[in-house]
Amino acid sequence: MSQFKVTFLPYDTHIMMATGESLIRAAMEAGVHINASCGGDGVCGKCRVTIEQGRVEGGISEHLSEEDRDKGYRLACKATVVEDVVVRIPVESAIDTSALLRKAPRQTASIQQMNLDDIKEQGLFVPPMEKLYLELPPPSAGDNLPDISRLVNYLRIQHDEGGLEISLPVIRKIPTVFREQDFKVTVTVARPVRSSGKHQIINVEPGDTTDHNYAVAMDIGTTTVYGQMVNLITGEVMAEAGKFNGQISYGEDVISRIIYAEKPEGLEKIHQVVIETVNQVLAKIIKKSKVDRQSISVLTLAGNTTMTQLLLKVEPRFIRRSPYVPASRIYPRIKASDLGIDLADHVTALVYPQVSSYVGGDIVAGVMGSGMYRTDKMTLFLDIGTNAEVVIGNKDWLACAACSAGPAFEGGGIEFGMRAAKGAIEDFSIDPETLEPIIVTIGSVRPKGICGSGLITMVAILFEMGVINNQGKFDRDLGTPRIRKTNDVWEYVLAYKDETQIDRDIVINEIDIENLIRAKGAIYSGCMTLLAEVGMGPDDIEQIILAGGFGSYVDLEKAMVIGLLSEIDAGKVVYVGNASLLGARMSALTNRIREEVVGVTNMMTNFELSETPSYMDNYVAALFLPHTDVDRFPKVKAQMEARKQTLDELRRTAAAGAVQ
Amino acid sequence: MSQFKVTFLPYDTHIMMATGESLIRAAMEAGVHINASCGGDGVCGKCRVTIEQGRVEGGISEHLSEEDRDKGYRLACKATVVEDVVVRIPVESAIDTSALLRKAPRQTASIQQMNLDDIKEQGLFVPPMEKLYLELPPPSAGDNLPDISRLVNYLRIQHDEGGLEISLPVIRKIPTVFREQDFKVTVTVARPVRSSGKHQIINVEPGDTTDHNYAVAMDIGTTTVYGQMVNLITGEVMAEAGKFNGQISYGEDVISRIIYAEKPEGLEKIHQVVIETVNQVLAKIIKKSKVDRQSISVLTLAGNTTMTQLLLKVEPRFIRRSPYVPASRIYPRIKASDLGIDLADHVTALVYPQVSSYVGGDIVAGVMGSGMYRTDKMTLFLDIGTNAEVVIGNKDWLACAACSAGPAFEGGGIEFGMRAAKGAIEDFSIDPETLEPIIVTIGSVRPKGICGSGLITMVAILFEMGVINNQGKFDRDLGTPRIRKTNDVWEYVLAYKDETQIDRDIVINEIDIENLIRAKGAIYSGCMTLLAEVGMGPDDIEQIILAGGFGSYVDLEKAMVIGLLSEIDAGKVVYVGNASLLGARMSALTNRIREEVVGVTNMMTNFELSETPSYMDNYVAALFLPHTDVDRFPKVKAQMEARKQTLDELRRTAAAGAVQ
Repeated sequence: MSQFKVTFLPYDTHIMMATGESLIRAAMEAGVHINASCGGDGVCGKCRVTIEQGRVEGGISEHLSEEDRDKGYRLACKATVVEDVVVRIPVESAIDTSALLRKAPRQTASIQQMNLDDIKEQGLFVPPMEKLYLELPPPSAGDNLPDISRLVNYLRIQHDEGGLEISLPVIRKIPTVFREQDFKVTVTVARPVRSSGKHQIINVEPGDTTDHNYAVAMDIGTTTVYGQMVNLITGEVMAEAGKFNGQISYGEDVISRIIYAEKPEGLEKIHQVVIETVNQVLAKIIKKSKVDRQSISVLTLAGNTTMTQLLLKVEPRFIRRSPYVPASRIYPRIKASDLGIDLADHVTALVYPQVSSYVGGDIVAGVMGSGMYRTDKMTLFLDIGTNAEVVIGNKDWLACAACSAGPAFEGGGIEFGMRAAKGAIEDFSIDPETLEPIIVTIGSVRPKGICGSGLITMVAILFEMGVINNQGKFDRDLGTPRIRKTNDVWEYVLAYKDETQIDRDIVINEIDIENLIRAKGAIYSGCMTLLAEVGMGPDDIEQIILAGGFGSYVDLEKAMVIGLLSEIDAGKVVYVGNASLLGARMSALTNRIREEVVGVTNMMTNFELSETPSYMDNYVAALFLPHTDVDRFPKVKAQMEARKQTLDELRRTAAAGAVQ
Repeated sequence: MSQFKVTFLPYDTHIMMATGESLIRAAMEAGVHINASCGGDGVCGKCRVTIEQGRVEGGISEHLSEEDRDKGYRLACKATVVEDVVVRIPVESAIDTSALLRKAPRQTASIQQMNLDDIKEQGLFVPPMEKLYLELPPPSAGDNLPDISRLVNYLRIQHDEGGLEISLPVIRKIPTVFREQDFKVTVTVARPVRSSGKHQIINVEPGDTTDHNYAVAMDIGTTTVYGQMVNLITGEVMAEAGKFNGQISYGEDVISRIIYAEKPEGLEKIHQVVIETVNQVLAKIIKKSKVDRQSISVLTLAGNTTMTQLLLKVEPRFIRRSPYVPASRIYPRIKASDLGIDLADHVTALVYPQVSSYVGGDIVAGVMGSGMYRTDKMTLFLDIGTNAEVVIGNKDWLACAACSAGPAFEGGGIEFGMRAAKGAIEDFSIDPETLEPIIVTIGSVRPKGICGSGLITMVAILFEMGVINNQGKFDRDLGTPRIRKTNDVWEYVLAYKDETQIDRDIVINEIDIENLIRAKGAIYSGCMTLLAEVGMGPDDIEQIILAGGFGSYVDLEKAMVIGLLSEIDAGKVVYVGNASLLGARMSALTNRIREEVVGVTNMMTNFELSETPSYMDNYVAALFLPHTDVDRFPKVKAQMEARKQTLDELRRTAAAGAVQ
């Protein structure tokens, strides 16, 4: 997508934006305030701007008179970038420029994508299943070898293949398949992970089908199951789809799923539910990619320990009971159809190994897929999903731990919390003087709730602006009607009910903030404890890899403001997205992953934070914004001091108003 | 069983007999003629003898007056041996003593049984599945390894076991089983055939069950399925049972079974039928042995190529079509329950490999089980069942072929042919002058038909006595009413209808004899052709191993008289019984068999007799009694010449009678 320069006057600030992005989002990213309270739906009409140079698309609304339109006025929330443009923010839309807190443009982590060409160049593109075409001489009186012997002999002659194994279902197919196209056949061979291993003939098809060889990679998430169709000839992803894990109806988190599984027939039921979801995702990507189901050779799977055990129907009850024992670290190759997965009989499911009850195959997949296990750089890998897991190390050693962060980052435990879907407030700013908010929602529609990344930004800005203190409590003396007490709980009104989709005021309250602080505190203290356990500090970290559904949207600076992450150069942070899915795909593309995964899993030393005495101290100290020891966050400290004066003025004005 | 000396007067011939054997059988074996025509049922009353010394049990009948009884008369067919005894054959029972053909006692092959102690002494008693008992330390906060890792670690510590694999179904069991008896468990490990192979954990049970480890060995015969329950701790057979293969209803021989399998759903049906039989045999031996079904660890199977493919549901249609291609030589380990066999999920079925379409796993099992593949002696192995297969060679090389013998030896194609069951005539003799028969049936009841071994004896004796010529045609001029023509076919009456169970005269006719000649001709010429192909002759054979259901009953001398076997010292012939079952049992007792079986199978060079030009010449030459070249059978030739004079006299008498 093309990028265009958007310049904001009178501040002369500019930012590069992609075609189609709205001006309000551009302003938000550039740190320029435009009034807006409807989430970008165009209904409040407050975000008027004039276009001084260049052209935008849209932004014309009934809120603008014909005259205004002719003068170049547009609604910033509905005007989208199509070329370089200069935008002026009129006085009525802008705050007092002298008071403008020139915030830095939003810094998200750079996205690290897998480079297929690199993999191919390094000779690592060795999928676990390969197809070979053969033309066999038909049997005769002088050569009436058994069919399988003929196949094995000619695989040696024509393809130099040896040490082959074959299963009964394939043997059953062979006599007929051989004679369908005159002894011309395509054989699918499963490659062993080690050169000493056996090669397995897993399928035979009549004729030459070598061009059609696919893998499905899947991430079995607690919340969502994602799948990708991977072409094993080109290495490309042909389709991708996701679907909420059907088990959600049986509980939001892994613990409640395990509790359900402990009921009579519960394990069978909850196992079948996730298999159903897998089959639905499969159907979606088969449809999207137009791949013949019979041409799929392998299924690679990654999930956390509980998801893996439920998927495989392995008793999970000991995962949630001290001393938290999972069934197995490594799982063998499994026939996908034995699990009820709707794939041909010959398809093998390869399942990522687990480290412990709470550091599962999704994290191992992330470590493999992100390449963390091969880097020299001291790396901190952080996967924030329904739970949060942290891995520290590099190619020489790896330490890991799970943080009981709770579901706040996925909107859980937040009064208006929701998943990152249409209508979720994902960006937020505040007028430094009026304390009026700007909110931007996903899909630019009227707000319905708050998603995880929005919540982080919101709490960070409320804190930076001094609206809440370091314990997450509202300053009651700022003189804005947006801060109020409802049912004995202090809250800030993000949007009044007539601006929302839900006919209720959308607020963020002190309980929400406390939950977020607990969540970020658990992650931060988890990282710090693990670092201390391995004799290191935050400064030793050369790279942070962020993974998980919400990582790409998080404003890194804001994450540091609330103390979720240590203050670190944003350039050192990379985002790998769904690392579990990435790892699953990687293991479909290269046997190198499978060769090394057991060693890596064994190398991952697990720390049970609940068993680590220093953890609780670290946790308690982290239950502040950004931390009880603010010296750890020098940038935040400086900002707070700079803001102090304005706040004092606001309080004085409010007090004066109250006296009048 | 004790053996006692039975002496027959006036001939002063004696023979050793076991307790409980009848005097008529003793006489038969000793070559002494006693009149008898009812099969040993005591109804004809012809077989009167007196006991001169010692005591017999039974033999008193309404056919004997009280006076006769007091004089010591007994019916030989009902009197059984209990101690040394001297028996006189009275004039009315015996033939003219001067005319008595003093035939040699019946010579059956010595029975070779597996010597378990030898196997143990040689260190070969290494069953494929072993049980190991473990006491694991329960997990704790400081040691919360996954259950499977704990198992693998302690198998190394407590039993020095490494390189272990484990399947999903076993993983599923482990969390619960571990906690049933406080982490005390018994593990069943499948041993690889080669030291480089992986050991597989196939089962875990709570507590110590190492004393209960069993195998089932099975022979899947075209006619009968036999099974044995083998104790893998002691090596002993605990129970044995057989049952007709349910597929018999779908055809007597392999060809008709294949034809049925070619019908729509036919393969599925006929597969299920044999699985049903397997399950019935299994139920029988489980009941007999009182073994807990769950304690069975392995199932070893041997069958001919067609039976194997039908058992495994592998398309058999190409077996019966030129160029006669079987699906596979080697079959992988198969989960028994996947075949529908009623055994626990962890039980592996080990299937003997096949050489060709007509030399199958039953023959390979025979070669392995009989030890033929390890002997220095040049050996001819002959398995006569529904079909006949021959293997020649020793530890250095092996050649094999199948002979299309047809089912004559199992009673097929013989007007009164039947299997070796109660009422089948199994022994036969003839009065040299009156040409009256003596018949002995299985179970000593009135005759119902003729079994294979009986047929061989019958044709041999009719030929020795000159009643039939070397083309199997009756001498029409011997003046006995037993030789007659019915529906244009000449026949000899074995029993008149009032002496039978079937209310019809039981006869042997020229068509029956022709069928037997074809069958024996096929086998003899098969052996000769194969010998010639490997550059040998009958004199090079140092040992004959007879296998198959009927081998133990065959009178070797008689088999040589009809030309089924070359004339050879009977001491060189051993009988191994059901060699296929023996091989199946051996592979349950020692991994050595499994280690070597693939090599042996590959070593077995198959000759398709139909593709060997000399075979047809050999076959045609063998369609005589004993052979077109009688010089190959010097003993038979001498006997025939000795008999000539008596026959000439008989003909003269008959002619004179006819003139009168």
